Amino acid sequence: MNNFVFHNPTELIFGKGQIEKLEEKVHKLGQKILVVYGGGSIKKTGLYDKVVTILKSNGATISELPGIEPNPRLTTVKKGIDICKQNEIDWILAIGGGSVIDASKAIAIGAKYEGDVWDFYNRKAFPTAALPLGTILTLAATGSEMNPMSVVTNWETQEKHGGYTTYPTFSILDPENTFSVPKDQTIYGSCDIMSHVFEQYFSHTSNIPLQTRFAESILKTVIENVELAITNPNDYDARANLLMCGTFALNGILSTGVETDWATHSIEHAVSAVYDIPHGGGLAIIFPNWMKYVYEEDVARFARFAAEVWGVDAIDKSDNEIALEGIEAVRSFFNKIGAPSRLADYNITDEKLDIMAEKAVPFGPIGNFKKLNKDDVYQILKMSL
Amino acid sequence: MNNFVFHNPTELIFGKGQIEKLEEKVHKLGQKILVVYGGGSIKKTGLYDKVVTILKSNGATISELPGIEPNPRLTTVKKGIDICKQNEIDWILAIGGGSVIDASKAIAIGAKYEGDVWDFYNRKAFPTAALPLGTILTLAATGSEMNPMSVVTNWETQEKHGGYTTYPTFSILDPENTFSVPKDQTIYGSCDIMSHVFEQYFSHTSNIPLQTRFAESILKTVIENVELAITNPNDYDARANLLMCGTFALNGILSTGVETDWATHSIEHAVSAVYDIPHGGGLAIIFPNWMKYVYEEDVARFARFAAEVWGVDAIDKSDNEIALEGIEAVRSFFNKIGAPSRLADYNITDEKLDIMAEKAVPFGPIGNFKKLNKDDVYQILKMSL
Repeated sequence: MNNFVFHNPTELIFGKGQIEKLEEKVHKLGQKILVVYGGGSIKKTGLYDKVVTILKSNGATISELPGIEPNPRLTTVKKGIDICKQNEIDWILAIGGGSVIDASKAIAIGAKYEGDVWDFYNRKAFPTAALPLGTILTLAATGSEMNPMSVVTNWETQEKHGGYTTYPTFSILDPENTFSVPKDQTIYGSCDIMSHVFEQYFSHTSNIPLQTRFAESILKTVIENVELAITNPNDYDARANLLMCGTFALNGILSTGVETDWATHSIEHAVSAVYDIPHGGGLAIIFPNWMKYVYEEDVARFARFAAEVWGVDAIDKSDNEIALEGIEAVRSFFNKIGAPSRLADYNITDEKLDIMAEKAVPFGPIGNFKKLNKDDVYQILKMSL
Repeated sequence: MNNFVFHNPTELIFGKGQIEKLEEKVHKLGQKILVVYGGGSIKKTGLYDKVVTILKSNGATISELPGIEPNPRLTTVKKGIDICKQNEIDWILAIGGGSVIDASKAIAIGAKYEGDVWDFYNRKAFPTAALPLGTILTLAATGSEMNPMSVVTNWETQEKHGGYTTYPTFSILDPENTFSVPKDQTIYGSCDIMSHVFEQYFSHTSNIPLQTRFAESILKTVIENVELAITNPNDYDARANLLMCGTFALNGILSTGVETDWATHSIEHAVSAVYDIPHGGGLAIIFPNWMKYVYEEDVARFARFAAEVWGVDAIDKSDNEIALEGIEAVRSFFNKIGAPSRLADYNITDEKLDIMAEKAVPFGPIGNFKKLNKDDVYQILKMSL
């Protein structure tokens, strides 16, 4: 196990009706609030009205930034920063999924910064101050509700980068707020959660039995709940379990003392920076190919993964065979729940492979389980066509 | 799953050499420090000297409260509170195991309170302010390093109560600081960790698959590491894993959305309030008997426990048989690692059973998996003789 510091100050407020806790937050954090959201589905579901009613009845003055894109854009973030500065906003309330939260994190640090907020994403600066940020999560996926990371796309330069921003002060997770998540988003979200676990599970760090079992716990729980949520979108238990998995997959616990990888995320970011495809869909396509490309770095780890998570029968098989069956099980599961399996599913051809491979390694080789340079990424993308 | 709020602000600083981080803490939290410790083993190991050197070379003025008892006493806590008030202490540094940390938590809230600190333990008051508290953990056991609970014994009234106090601001967990833990304390600590998991695992709350698997993860990891640490006390990996298990068993994650029990802890507190036996030893004696007494409340839960944690073979057996084999496995494991199995091992007879049963239920029936009144406790204690 490596040395580590774990310090996650986000208050996680979980369950039915917890939106009522917004009242105390207005009194604690202030009355000038920027409400950030996406395409307006929260207006259809009634969530927007509920939130605004609670905020206003507690004396809040609300500014709004609607229209956050699925891959949130730097230009939109900058609009939010301007609103904060012009209106002396006390705190930000993000209502939505990971994109809305990620954009709001960027706004929270940008509002306290004199320079260009993109500095935090291209590693020219590190944030030291932020507006408080509350979130109301509407999609089990990115884990952004309980970590300090944020991904933003600079469309002018076709770059999509993740950066350290700020922990949400609080996050409200009511499974009922995810009932209206459509089938495809439920699938993508689950692929995203599982991918986050993969990035931390495939590690060369020795002596991490507890972290390994926690990771397997999350994977098994996602696997047994995705189809329940797809079949019955109003299944409270299934939605609750997916929310728990999404948050705990990326709130820092799985990576305590563990060298993590994140190469596949870099590759997917490169793809969706060029083609604007859903992040979870891109991960579902690329991850099994990454696994095939790298598994020989630690066949035993992949064999354990196959046995523990997928129940691959080990009798009379080599570790290599077991490992490969485990990777096949990942692909089969993604197929079974309806995730895409090839870049062709998004009409992506080999035309821009080289551009994407280049974009995946902007700061040099990526990953730790196996260091990948541009050529490696090219091969993995080619396998994914 | 029940609604819940999870908010754990403790900074967990884990690994070899992390004591160096004390430097930044002096600059952040202040230079007037009360150092609290136990019987002086930290002087033999050199830890005391290392800490004092770092603190003093950063300008600290140190007050000391040595001699915290294994079951920390109210009288000792009050001495610490007096020191804080007289010396305008900025923060407290606890060096030791759960007892030292629990006493320090009591001091931290008592120093900011005009009344009797025992008010917080007999439920007459709830703490609203505390001095900052740092801990350097020397024993994997109570989890006190990352939660707000504290247990103190009022020897005048022969009462031992747990109460909500304050989260440590930071906790330093260096596995090397646990190398010198003697065999019996390693055993008791591991029994304590497993007992904390049991108190949260045996629950009637439905739909808690992730919490269930997390709990099983901790139990399996303790089981595979205790004997390694006993056989080779300097096994860094085994000590690191036990530390991780101790902290995560009781930092609030296992109980997210879960109705917990804690009856067995109440019973053990009653026993050790009368006989001053080691907490972990008392738990090892009582827990398997509690299990036998209550398992029919949910045989399926106990059958799952037997299969998942202890690998009990389920073929051709009823759930009832599997459940009972699982309970036997707990007793066998405790025996195997050298934990006590009967109250007689501490020369406790049936003489004061009634007094102990009475003391276990001071605020009414205890537990949730099965509500236990005084008579139930009496039966469990009788089974434990």
